[in-house]
Amino acid sequence: MINKKSSGSEWYNEIIETASLVDKRYPVKGMNVLPPYGFKLVSIVDSIIREAVNSNGFEESMFPMLISRDQLSVEFEHVKGFEGQVFWVTRGGNEPLEVDLALRPTSEAAMYPMFSLWIRTHSDLPLKLYQIVNTYRYETKHTRAFIRDREIHFFEAHTAHADFDDSERQMQEYKQIMKNISQKLCLPYVINKRPEWDKFPGSQYSLAFDLILPSGRSLQIGTIHQYGENFAKNYDIRYSDPAGERKLVSQTTYGMSGRLIAAIVFMHGDDKGLVLPPYVAPIQFIIVPIPGENRNLAKYSTRVLEQIASLGYRVRLDNRGSYTPGFKYNDWEMRGVPFRIEIGSKETEGNFITIVPRNTGKRSKIQISELQNSLASAVTTLQDDLMKAAEEKMREMTVQVNDIKNAKTSTGMIRLMWCGRKECADKIEQETELSCLGYPQDDSGEGKCVICSLPAKPAYFSRTY
Amino acid sequence: MINKKSSGSEWYNEIIETASLVDKRYPVKGMNVLPPYGFKLVSIVDSIIREAVNSNGFEESMFPMLISRDQLSVEFEHVKGFEGQVFWVTRGGNEPLEVDLALRPTSEAAMYPMFSLWIRTHSDLPLKLYQIVNTYRYETKHTRAFIRDREIHFFEAHTAHADFDDSERQMQEYKQIMKNISQKLCLPYVINKRPEWDKFPGSQYSLAFDLILPSGRSLQIGTIHQYGENFAKNYDIRYSDPAGERKLVSQTTYGMSGRLIAAIVFMHGDDKGLVLPPYVAPIQFIIVPIPGENRNLAKYSTRVLEQIASLGYRVRLDNRGSYTPGFKYNDWEMRGVPFRIEIGSKETEGNFITIVPRNTGKRSKIQISELQNSLASAVTTLQDDLMKAAEEKMREMTVQVNDIKNAKTSTGMIRLMWCGRKECADKIEQETELSCLGYPQDDSGEGKCVICSLPAKPAYFSRTY
Repeated sequence: MINKKSSGSEWYNEIIETASLVDKRYPVKGMNVLPPYGFKLVSIVDSIIREAVNSNGFEESMFPMLISRDQLSVEFEHVKGFEGQVFWVTRGGNEPLEVDLALRPTSEAAMYPMFSLWIRTHSDLPLKLYQIVNTYRYETKHTRAFIRDREIHFFEAHTAHADFDDSERQMQEYKQIMKNISQKLCLPYVINKRPEWDKFPGSQYSLAFDLILPSGRSLQIGTIHQYGENFAKNYDIRYSDPAGERKLVSQTTYGMSGRLIAAIVFMHGDDKGLVLPPYVAPIQFIIVPIPGENRNLAKYSTRVLEQIASLGYRVRLDNRGSYTPGFKYNDWEMRGVPFRIEIGSKETEGNFITIVPRNTGKRSKIQISELQNSLASAVTTLQDDLMKAAEEKMREMTVQVNDIKNAKTSTGMIRLMWCGRKECADKIEQETELSCLGYPQDDSGEGKCVICSLPAKPAYFSRTY
Repeated sequence: MINKKSSGSEWYNEIIETASLVDKRYPVKGMNVLPPYGFKLVSIVDSIIREAVNSNGFEESMFPMLISRDQLSVEFEHVKGFEGQVFWVTRGGNEPLEVDLALRPTSEAAMYPMFSLWIRTHSDLPLKLYQIVNTYRYETKHTRAFIRDREIHFFEAHTAHADFDDSERQMQEYKQIMKNISQKLCLPYVINKRPEWDKFPGSQYSLAFDLILPSGRSLQIGTIHQYGENFAKNYDIRYSDPAGERKLVSQTTYGMSGRLIAAIVFMHGDDKGLVLPPYVAPIQFIIVPIPGENRNLAKYSTRVLEQIASLGYRVRLDNRGSYTPGFKYNDWEMRGVPFRIEIGSKETEGNFITIVPRNTGKRSKIQISELQNSLASAVTTLQDDLMKAAEEKMREMTVQVNDIKNAKTSTGMIRLMWCGRKECADKIEQETELSCLGYPQDDSGEGKCVICSLPAKPAYFSRTY
């Protein structure tokens, strides 16, 4: 295993494949196979997202993957924003199609013609839908699994509201939902308002959830967009208000992708491999029996397996005969299993287990009679530890600079004063090779722009994935 | 609502849209939107499938949707079988692609190049994987939602085994899995061995699970295929046996689609609309309060809601103020909700509920204290009733004929003696406009072919969807 600290991106590329999260040998560029372990991790993250949005009144649905050129031909900046990145189906069997079909790059053009049919009166609002599907982008940049794919595992929520105020309330609700999800994934973030030129095409404004990774680059793990009436105008989405007047709806969206997986891998992993938070781990407890004189070992191990499973945890017993316990320890550590349970003669005789959390590697005893409470508390402790460690890394990688020279020589999320004008951001980006992430939402500082000295607010700049 | 019996296909086309299982107004032909109610039904059926295959050692995975022309260019009858039905991506952004990419019509060509990398030795076998994805076929025939779509919701299991005997055991396991699934969906079927010219392209033989619907047409709701070494040869999938010899694997597949939904709708529905078996219903219990003098109604209804939810059922309280109870009864009957729970003054005062199963419409009382046992028994009874009724319909629609004249004038699944030769099947098909479904697997009769009088076995012929 290569060293994480000294070679972040290489470490990432290697570990996701060694740990069976993806197989990158698929013959089409930028499209990867999810083997069972990787698929399971992705599914668990999906189910965490589902739970969070369902409990806020969202409903899941599914819209077709193909979008006709007519649907996309709406004269609108949103469509232009994706033009260069769309895969086109032009033939069916041996015949050319009458109308070319786009693979969805995102689903506004698929959904909104239907919204326009579904929404009739104010009682149909708010409409809160989502889907979890793959989207497709013809990326010309270097691809990287889970970070920049041509086939993207994608969550997209779409809402429609009676007025702008209600869609602003929706933006606040999204922030709560993201907080809830990120607690389970142990991912801290800052919320940056993207500059005008980097907002989602067609939106009024875009807020991004940005992580800063141990490699010093930032990663956008989610975005929420205020559309206002921009899309409603173009797709003719109107409702009758109580007075009978026909009004445009106001809309928002919320998007997340496989980047959540990338963030988990990058943020928590170490030189031994993955470290998965208990909430998301496909296997939360791995039981490794240590062969010895004890004849009772198999029976005892199976009993422990059953007891832990009956508590609702994802647990597995590794009784592969051809491997040593030491090999198994390394193997499961590499795959990020949060807890190893060792069972040998002492454990069997003393009616306890030895538990080893992935982050500290410190052994401790749990009596079988204490299993329920002790495992629950071990899970909570590990979740908390991982979150605190991630927050600490974020803090370390966030650097306050007062002039452009210091920005050049620093790595991480660079906090500096910026006036908000594109020309100054361009200069900063040119001189430092950093990208402007925009203004953080929870930072009320004031000062002078590092370029033009006009009144400014703190902004974040960083290298990005 | 139009009459089911007199107009089967029209009834079907109308009810699936009225009940919000699909919205067919999407602008691309043969591709439909799944609104929340339809999506939920599809998801529940998926989860029943997942449970059934997971408990037999299958693991879920996901392979890319795009398959390069190179992967498909293997000279092999399997590929030829799909040639006319493939959607082709030929452009990315504004550039032509270097290699055209097919939307998966089925995933052999996506999976098997990876199987060839993954399978090394006998200890990697059996390999048992599946995925639940959408597949794409450029259907030239008339499309029909859930039955013949261009975007198909698809379950596909793929296995690899050390030898043919083991892949034959797999075929038997599939039958058990299908039995398990179909019990929950209340769908009886016969297993027909498709004739040689109608087997899955590339397979050694194909077994189909065929339903006969009240309309008199049969519907194939699942297929299992014995590939033997046919695919392994073409995709070079080999393993080292214990003696170190390199051997080809033997393979099988199992496929099911949205047709399961079509079968549920068609088999159980009536003139009032859908009838959904409790196991698959998105809403299993709908509570309709009947407004009256009673002030306690809202509180009591909510308590019933919470109690039924706490028992693990999918339950909803319909407290829309603007509709009458009568309207609500019709609305939820149309959507197929298995049980209506009525709550009025008598119920509130007597501490009971009135329950009305969708199939009989017969009211009965359940005391609140008896909720757990009585609901469980109501669910079991309705599942059994629906299964029995479906089996009875299948029996009624299965017709034994002794000569070709009777076959012409009968509707349903026609059982007749056939020698097995294509020329005789062709004649039967021409004269009767029925299709040959093949030999049923559980029928040991013998006789003389209705065409040529040679020794024959009973075969099924029917009109098909």
